[in-house]
Amino acid sequence: MKIKGYKFANLSCLIGNNKKLKLGLIYLETLGRCVASFTTNILKSNSIIVSQKHLRKTNEIKCILTNSGCANTACGKDGVKSTEEICEFLANKLGIKKEMVLIASTGVIGEPLPKEVIIDCIPQLVSSLSNNKNSVIKFAKSILTTDTKPKVVYKKFKNNNILCIAKGAGMVAPKLKLYNPHATMLVFLLTDLFLERNLMQKLMNRTIIPIFNSFSIDGDTSPNDTIFFVSLVKNENNYKLTKNDFQKLSKIIEKVCEETVKKLLFDGEGVTKVVKIVIENCPKNRAEILAKTISNSLLVKTAIHGADPNWGRILAAIGRSGIKFNINKVDIYIGKHCVVKDGNSNFVNDNVVRKTMLKNFFEIRINMKCRKTTNFIFYTTDLSKKYVDINSKYKT
Amino acid sequence: MKIKGYKFANLSCLIGNNKKLKLGLIYLETLGRCVASFTTNILKSNSIIVSQKHLRKTNEIKCILTNSGCANTACGKDGVKSTEEICEFLANKLGIKKEMVLIASTGVIGEPLPKEVIIDCIPQLVSSLSNNKNSVIKFAKSILTTDTKPKVVYKKFKNNNILCIAKGAGMVAPKLKLYNPHATMLVFLLTDLFLERNLMQKLMNRTIIPIFNSFSIDGDTSPNDTIFFVSLVKNENNYKLTKNDFQKLSKIIEKVCEETVKKLLFDGEGVTKVVKIVIENCPKNRAEILAKTISNSLLVKTAIHGADPNWGRILAAIGRSGIKFNINKVDIYIGKHCVVKDGNSNFVNDNVVRKTMLKNFFEIRINMKCRKTTNFIFYTTDLSKKYVDINSKYKT
Repeated sequence: MKIKGYKFANLSCLIGNNKKLKLGLIYLETLGRCVASFTTNILKSNSIIVSQKHLRKTNEIKCILTNSGCANTACGKDGVKSTEEICEFLANKLGIKKEMVLIASTGVIGEPLPKEVIIDCIPQLVSSLSNNKNSVIKFAKSILTTDTKPKVVYKKFKNNNILCIAKGAGMVAPKLKLYNPHATMLVFLLTDLFLERNLMQKLMNRTIIPIFNSFSIDGDTSPNDTIFFVSLVKNENNYKLTKNDFQKLSKIIEKVCEETVKKLLFDGEGVTKVVKIVIENCPKNRAEILAKTISNSLLVKTAIHGADPNWGRILAAIGRSGIKFNINKVDIYIGKHCVVKDGNSNFVNDNVVRKTMLKNFFEIRINMKCRKTTNFIFYTTDLSKKYVDINSKYKT
Repeated sequence: MKIKGYKFANLSCLIGNNKKLKLGLIYLETLGRCVASFTTNILKSNSIIVSQKHLRKTNEIKCILTNSGCANTACGKDGVKSTEEICEFLANKLGIKKEMVLIASTGVIGEPLPKEVIIDCIPQLVSSLSNNKNSVIKFAKSILTTDTKPKVVYKKFKNNNILCIAKGAGMVAPKLKLYNPHATMLVFLLTDLFLERNLMQKLMNRTIIPIFNSFSIDGDTSPNDTIFFVSLVKNENNYKLTKNDFQKLSKIIEKVCEETVKKLLFDGEGVTKVVKIVIENCPKNRAEILAKTISNSLLVKTAIHGADPNWGRILAAIGRSGIKFNINKVDIYIGKHCVVKDGNSNFVNDNVVRKTMLKNFFEIRINMKCRKTTNFIFYTTDLSKKYVDINSKYKT
């Protein structure tokens, strides 16, 4: 695991009441190019507001500052100003323009960023920047909240490297839009390739966003969700990829994103099982509503948790989704078992289905038989007592 | 607690695998008039399909057969036929037309009604019909599933009586429509008044449905939700209520329905707290989406459970609701405490807010400041570990 041209740092500080704020920094030795996507939640973190402002001025960046422990959201009218002052201090320290600083935050909503504490920490943070393997892992740890494991995915592309660092265990139901904000999922997809802006945008729109928008842990889309996709900038114009190379790169980025999503799902708050929902033969807009209704149903999520083959809850969720369809055409499969045939019980033995549901990963497949050949894929998790435990005392 | 002209019966029977099916019967000594509303879930119980068929032929009824333990939904192609045969057997036993029998079921989806067992039980059920107080309570117990208490509300109207018997602790998020099916909430609203059909429809549409559609326990609208509103039929035409009396009656029915909803909420699966959500100054269609998004948010429900003043989750739920609005105009109150002012923290001490949230009933008020004076009210519950316990092993 290595990546050229990037350095990483992290630092923990106490901010009163025995609470900890963790800071992280990604620094580019040369100029970097960033294409970003943010949450579609109307409520937006001040970190997103400031990053968007900077990205409107330039997409050539030098660093990304991160913090966990404070969402920097809805925390008073001075929120944007404080965030800008922090970025400006860091820019001065590094001798760069302030719009070359991006920022991402995760944590509790409503509490202000402790500006003074952060500014006091910046010199030490900058001086500890390093490009060894350990510094990547430590940075990946510094962005975690209720996650239990750092999430790092690494792949090679020819002589170059792609590194994806992510976090997000709760308030995760990404609904991202290019350059428009969404969950506290934070993703830093970094490469030491030289990539053109339009190719990066194409990768963001066609590959990265669709994959990160296709899963949900709790259905609650966060005001802080951010993906920063960063490549290096070369002082020449002739670094176009061949069509063939671009396709190869797309495939690798696809794999990196899919592996990252899998890590996020399995480390979701209280998660013990991950389920792949496949909606077959259904127009895409309807398939998405069906998949999300099933994915967010408390009754379906608790049945998954208990490996309880109560497929009636899946059929009832489809029925209440608001979509109009012929219930007598619906087939439901749990793993390879067809539990519902033409909208009615197929009388499969519960104990057989239960065996599939006891696995920590299985598939629920719904065939809507609408004469559309497209399939829609969405991932969801179970709902456990541990989830309730974590989330009933998050703030207190 | 008394009601003229009605008799009640109940019976338990074993249906194999040590499972119990509970039967109930409401019988009218004279002719009754029924106005019904059912779930809007596209998936419908065979009991609803058959009741609708009967109500299309006549709204003059003689009895309502109930069962708990089996939803009679999606249980094979013979489901409707079996249900009709059961009704026919009961009609013959009582010497009435089969369309004068209504039926309502609640329980697991996908398992067929045990027709032979029920037919065998009908003679004993009919012979045990009685009009004493005890028989009402026993009937109310016979329709329960995960409910822990029978739900009976009784009020007087002049010399007449209004009795409401209900059940529903899970898969409860009613979305009823007059004469069109929705949650396994079952409601039997009975009166010994003589009421005209158009007045009953008016009461159903303006008073009964809006109240039963204004709460949710788990967000999962059931395929079995049913309200049967029954009055007596007199052999004369001149039994019109005065306008004044109708208004008084409306008020009493409103109270009966509200008290019933409260009983359903507090006995919801694993429920320890009930919250009234008030959306102020917002067009109704938007207010409904906002209230339901907050009401169904896992993060909000778990925060309520832990009395955790994490109001950022409420603001984030509003932001992801899909409604367009100005976030800088939103105020949020928890009890009397204004925690969010103009979309930002109002910096109220968490410990003060927590005191309100420790109560088993409190209000969350959202002012959207859209220059509309209407308020929308919706009730929700917390999400506890007990809920997960109940629902991860419902079927197995």
